[in-house]
Amino acid sequence: MNSINHSRRSLLTTTGGAIGLASIGAIGSLTPAAKALAAAQDEKKKIDLPAYASWKNADSLIIHSANTMETKRNAFGSGVITPLDRLFVRNNISPPSEDIVADPDVWQLQIEGVKNPVTISVAELKTLGVTTVAMVLQCSGNGRAYFPSKPSGTQWTVGAAGCVMFTGVPVKAVLEHVGGMNADAKYMTGTGGEPIPEGLDPNTIQVERSVPLEGIENALLAWEINGEPLPLAHGGPLRLIVPGYTGVNNVKYIKRLAFTTEQSAANIQQTGYRLAPQGEKGAPTQKSVWEMPVKSWITHPGEPDAKLKAGNLQIQGLAMGGTSEVTGVEVSVDGGKTWKKAEFTGPDLGPFAWRQFVLPVNLKAGTYTLASRATNKAGDEQPAERLENNRGYLNNSWNDHALTITVA
Amino acid sequence: MNSINHSRRSLLTTTGGAIGLASIGAIGSLTPAAKALAAAQDEKKKIDLPAYASWKNADSLIIHSANTMETKRNAFGSGVITPLDRLFVRNNISPPSEDIVADPDVWQLQIEGVKNPVTISVAELKTLGVTTVAMVLQCSGNGRAYFPSKPSGTQWTVGAAGCVMFTGVPVKAVLEHVGGMNADAKYMTGTGGEPIPEGLDPNTIQVERSVPLEGIENALLAWEINGEPLPLAHGGPLRLIVPGYTGVNNVKYIKRLAFTTEQSAANIQQTGYRLAPQGEKGAPTQKSVWEMPVKSWITHPGEPDAKLKAGNLQIQGLAMGGTSEVTGVEVSVDGGKTWKKAEFTGPDLGPFAWRQFVLPVNLKAGTYTLASRATNKAGDEQPAERLENNRGYLNNSWNDHALTITVA
Repeated sequence: MNSINHSRRSLLTTTGGAIGLASIGAIGSLTPAAKALAAAQDEKKKIDLPAYASWKNADSLIIHSANTMETKRNAFGSGVITPLDRLFVRNNISPPSEDIVADPDVWQLQIEGVKNPVTISVAELKTLGVTTVAMVLQCSGNGRAYFPSKPSGTQWTVGAAGCVMFTGVPVKAVLEHVGGMNADAKYMTGTGGEPIPEGLDPNTIQVERSVPLEGIENALLAWEINGEPLPLAHGGPLRLIVPGYTGVNNVKYIKRLAFTTEQSAANIQQTGYRLAPQGEKGAPTQKSVWEMPVKSWITHPGEPDAKLKAGNLQIQGLAMGGTSEVTGVEVSVDGGKTWKKAEFTGPDLGPFAWRQFVLPVNLKAGTYTLASRATNKAGDEQPAERLENNRGYLNNSWNDHALTITVA
Repeated sequence: MNSINHSRRSLLTTTGGAIGLASIGAIGSLTPAAKALAAAQDEKKKIDLPAYASWKNADSLIIHSANTMETKRNAFGSGVITPLDRLFVRNNISPPSEDIVADPDVWQLQIEGVKNPVTISVAELKTLGVTTVAMVLQCSGNGRAYFPSKPSGTQWTVGAAGCVMFTGVPVKAVLEHVGGMNADAKYMTGTGGEPIPEGLDPNTIQVERSVPLEGIENALLAWEINGEPLPLAHGGPLRLIVPGYTGVNNVKYIKRLAFTTEQSAANIQQTGYRLAPQGEKGAPTQKSVWEMPVKSWITHPGEPDAKLKAGNLQIQGLAMGGTSEVTGVEVSVDGGKTWKKAEFTGPDLGPFAWRQFVLPVNLKAGTYTLASRATNKAGDEQPAERLENNRGYLNNSWNDHALTITVA
C-alpha cells in the first residue's frame, strides 16, 4: 500500500515546518557542519507523491503526506472547474489496491435498508440513470492551519477544496429501483471499501458516514469526475456524492449504501468529525460535520507577501455558498475596513459550484491586506471570525483567509 | 520542430487506413512472409504523440499526424468540459518552439488599426480585465470523414471538437485601452506566431485569419484553458478566442491583432477555408468558414457496431447551438424514422458551450441505428444531410453522424 512508483516520483519540499536550506539567506556564513545539518533536514522534508496519485501535478500541490495533498493558493486557475491533476487528495486511511479501478463496471455495491435489498454492479447502476453535478468538494478541515489553537490534523490552508463535476446515477433513481427505503430510515449511511487489517475492530478505522435524509435529494453514486473515469485517488470506481456536504461524507470506494435508523457506529461518525468545544473530545451529542458554510478566498495574487507593480490589478478569487447558492462577494484591500462589490465572471455551474470573482483595482506603492466575504441565497454572510472548535473544522473566517501584498 | 520526446512517447496504431495485424482474424492461416508484411505495415502505422503534445492521453485519441489528433467518440465523458489531455489538436503548420510558453507573461502582441497602436505584453494584458467563457472549440473540417466525396484533408470523424473554458481579457477591454478601432475597420485580423521559413512568401503559409466585427462582441485574448496556463499545443502563451467560430479563426500564438478594412491577404483567408462547390477551388468570392452551425452526436454507446445487453440503456450525447444557444435535442433509435425528446443533464455553461443529453431506452435484442438532431434558439434545426462543399467543412448532418449498435 502506498508504495512509491519510482519511475514517476516527484520530489518536493513541504511547505510546513522549518525553513528549508534554499530559503536560508545567510547560508554563506554557516559552518560546513551546520550546512550539512541543514541539508539533511531539507532532505527529510522531501515527500514523494504516492503511487496512486503519481499522475498529479506536483508543482501545484503542497504534499503534507501520502494521504494528504492540497492545491496551492496560486494554482487555482480562473476556469471554475479545478483540473484533476491539481485537485486535493485526502484519505482517512490508506486506499484500496489500484486493481479495483481496472474494470470499474464489475465493482459491487450492497444496498440495504430498502424494500428489496440487492447487490448491484456499477454496470447495472449505469443503466438506471445518469446525471452530472458541478460542486465544491472540500475537506472538513480546510483552513485548519489558521486556527490559533493549532488543532491536531493536517494543517490545510485554502487548498483542500476544488470545484469538480461528478457524473453518476441519482440515489433517488436507485431507490426507485429497489422499491424505496424503509419507513423508519433516518440516515443514509455509506461504507468505504478500504481494507480493514485483520484483528482490528472495524469501528476503530472503518470509513463509514451517515448523513440526514435531506442529503439524498441531490446525492449521486458517481463513476466519473471531470469527464474522466473516477481515479482511485478520488474514490473510484464508485463514490457516494452528497453535494453541499464536506468531503468525508462523500464516501470513497463505496461498497455498502444503507438507509438506517441510527448513525453509523464507527468512530469516524460517533466521535470523529464533531464540532467539539475547544479542549474537549468529540462525542455523539455534538453537532456532526455535515453541511459546508458560505466561504470565499482570494486566489490572485495568490502568494502571501507577493510583490507587485503599482497600477492596475485584477483581484480574483473563489466564492461558494455551501448548501445554498452564492449570491455575492465583496473585496477589501484594507484588511476589512472598507469593502467593494466584486463581479462574478465565467459560467454559473449551479448552486453547489463555486463562482469566480474579480475586482479591478488601481493600487499605489504600499502594503495591502486583501480579504473577501461572500453571501448566499439563504442570507448567510461569511463571518469575520472562525467558529472555534477542538479539531479545527469548517473555517470560513474572512479574516483568517486574508493575505498581505506589497506593491512597489 | 516536432522532435519526439522519447522518454514519454506513446506508440499507437492509427485507426484510418488498412486493417491492423491485431484485427486480422485468420492470422494463423497466413504464410510467414505474409505475417511479416502485415507486421511491417502495422509498424508503419504507429504514430508517436509529438513532443509538444506528449502529455496527452494517447488512449483517448486518434492520432492522424503530428499536427492532427482527435478525441475518440467513446472518450467524451459526461462532464460537459473536455479534459485537456483528451482535447483534439490541429495545427495548420508546425507550432513555434516550446520556449515561448516558459514565461507566458513576456509574450508580446502588436495591436494595429486602432487609435493608439501598441505592442503589449501578456503581463500588461492581464491588468486590463479578466473573464472566462465556456465554449465549443471545433475544427472546420470535423466530420469530413463522412463526406462520400472524400475531400482532401484530415479525415476527422466526431472528435475534432471539445467544450473548454478559456480565460483571458475581453477584446473590447483591450480596444478601450488603445482608444478604439479605426472607423473604417471591417474585420478583426489575427496573425499566428508560427515561424515562417526564410525565403518563403509568408502569405503562402502564414496562419492569419480575419473575422467580421460581430465576432468582437465575445472575443478574448486568452492565456488559460480549463484552469491551466494555455499549453503550446492549444495556442499558448496567447490565443485569440472567437466564441461560436470554427477553430482556425481562434488564432494560436497570436503576435498581431489588427482591425482592418480588408480580409487578410494570406492564402488561408483568401482561398483556404472557403465553402467552394464540389470540384472547385476556394476563392475570395465564396463564403468564408466562420460561424459553426447547430450540431449534435451520440457519445454513449460510443462505438460504432458496439455489442450491448438487451434491457435498459442510457443513450448519451453532446449538442451545440453554434452561435446561438442549443435549446433541444431529439434521439432516434431507428435511423431517423421516429424521434424522442432527450433531456439535457448537468450544468448549462452558456450559449457557446455544448450540453450533455440523455435518453433512457429499453431495447430488445436487435440492431439499432442511433441518431440525434439538435435545434438552437435562432430556430436552426440540425439537417439530415451535409452541405456539400469541396473541402468537407461544417458537416452537421445527423444522418452522417448516426451509428449502429447490436443488442443481444
